[in-house]
Amino acid sequence: MALVAGIDIGGTNMTAALVDDGHQLVERVKHKTPTEGPDAVMKAVAEMVKGLEQSPLAVGLGIPGPVNDGVVTNPPNLQNWPSHVDLGEQMSKMLAVPVAVGNDANVGALGEWVAGAGQGSRFLLGVWMGTGVGGGLVLEGRPYTGASGGAGEFGHMVVQMNGARCGCGRRGCIEAYAGRASMERSVDLAVAAGRRTTLLEIREERGKDRLTSSVWEKALEDGDELATELFDEAIAAISVGIGAAINLLDLDRVILGGGVAEKFGQDLADRVADAARPWVLLPRGDLDVVVAELGDDSGIVGAAALARAALLLQ
Amino acid sequence: MALVAGIDIGGTNMTAALVDDGHQLVERVKHKTPTEGPDAVMKAVAEMVKGLEQSPLAVGLGIPGPVNDGVVTNPPNLQNWPSHVDLGEQMSKMLAVPVAVGNDANVGALGEWVAGAGQGSRFLLGVWMGTGVGGGLVLEGRPYTGASGGAGEFGHMVVQMNGARCGCGRRGCIEAYAGRASMERSVDLAVAAGRRTTLLEIREERGKDRLTSSVWEKALEDGDELATELFDEAIAAISVGIGAAINLLDLDRVILGGGVAEKFGQDLADRVADAARPWVLLPRGDLDVVVAELGDDSGIVGAAALARAALLLQ
Repeated sequence: MALVAGIDIGGTNMTAALVDDGHQLVERVKHKTPTEGPDAVMKAVAEMVKGLEQSPLAVGLGIPGPVNDGVVTNPPNLQNWPSHVDLGEQMSKMLAVPVAVGNDANVGALGEWVAGAGQGSRFLLGVWMGTGVGGGLVLEGRPYTGASGGAGEFGHMVVQMNGARCGCGRRGCIEAYAGRASMERSVDLAVAAGRRTTLLEIREERGKDRLTSSVWEKALEDGDELATELFDEAIAAISVGIGAAINLLDLDRVILGGGVAEKFGQDLADRVADAARPWVLLPRGDLDVVVAELGDDSGIVGAAALARAALLLQ
Repeated sequence: MALVAGIDIGGTNMTAALVDDGHQLVERVKHKTPTEGPDAVMKAVAEMVKGLEQSPLAVGLGIPGPVNDGVVTNPPNLQNWPSHVDLGEQMSKMLAVPVAVGNDANVGALGEWVAGAGQGSRFLLGVWMGTGVGGGLVLEGRPYTGASGGAGEFGHMVVQMNGARCGCGRRGCIEAYAGRASMERSVDLAVAAGRRTTLLEIREERGKDRLTSSVWEKALEDGDELATELFDEAIAAISVGIGAAINLLDLDRVILGGGVAEKFGQDLADRVADAARPWVLLPRGDLDVVVAELGDDSGIVGAAALARAALLLQ
């Protein structure tokens, strides 16, 4: 069987997997993401690929940064990277097989589109709720990456002029309300200002160093006021953004992925759909918001799909 | 020479023109838009076409409403229209030539793309500043209309949750700050609340029944405080929306069209570019915001381009 490799490069960890032509993962290996820069990352990726049980016929990489024609530009969460790295060409030489590179959020949407909750859609937005808020698009039945590979930055659409401070330095971005890191900052600020919340106690009880989805879930179940307020704000911001994206792009489906979406499941998607519907200009009884199906594997499956496309087109 | 017809159907007037294969208008006729519904409009359009000096080989129509495969759905500014009208098929039977139909804002962007300020762009947003704020897209080098022909509603992207009331009933839409009708409502509300402004005097002096672009221009030149405030708000909303659209779509050009853009020209476009730049996530020294070149004719030229495409594909 023709196996390809899908590789998901994150700020902390990298996962490589052999993927068959039915989008199933055959073997999976993990590795810490080296922090010394692109040469170290490429070397580690090559070792992961060479350590797989079979040699893949092609390799796809998902990476957290803008990607244009294999070139990665200023990836914000990878350390010691220069402004431009031609990852596609360099890795292709190292591995002697075709290598395709995509932005992680775009590649995740692609994975869901070919094998998950996006199947059958032709106008799809994937929204990834994690530390930040990412996005990926499929338009007119193919992956959309924009003029220079930077499309899909759903999290940095502004929904509130002069609104909350975002990690990117701007104000009022969706991510400023719905990204895990921003929500945690908001909790800290509120507590510093004297607000009470069970969030921090629950975090401590559970021995976590951050407010995980399960910490939020418990606080919301307990009816914690601050947690409810911030979670409602997050849903409002995501929903206004989805409305804006639909009004601009006339999408037929929205997928919610990432830790929060997995934890809260279709209930969250239904809440988001209900909150987004009033913002959508065209009447749509069928506003289609669903939860990602592939969990952590959507990026790997999408990267493998890119690899398979590179194989076809070589 | 192979001539086609481009027809721009507005809420008040319709213009039909013979257009040559260099996108030049050869002859132009105008007509009031009938208010009795689609049959009357189609009859009047057919008469305009038959009255042209030459019979066009194909006809393109731009119409203010969502259009999907020739079918117009709930056009908000046309009177006595049922929910669905298959304008393409019916007009094609009446005229016995291929007829293509598009949304007016999309068709306007198409006109600028083929023959105006959008030439050479592959990822283009056209923003039309008029009574409302419309939008049209060209993505990956072809017109983009979305899953059901409703794409391009830039004016109803929300930039301020719980913001100003929009004519569409929602709050915080770009149009609520930058549409002429909304801006006029804001002036009336401010005056009713005791604010002073020269806008209304200038309107009266000039014998206008509304706040035209030249009325705004004079008030801004005079340093009128309310006019300056509202105009700044309009630019802020448009700019935040352009930033959001670029972050989502990684566009390579934005065109500003409509009466306000024509009146204030490239100075306005430069102000918008300066105001939008901080909202754009990817560094872009080259943020390309330009004024439409075809004026009122962009819709006609775009409709004619649709006609020519229909002719090729028949």
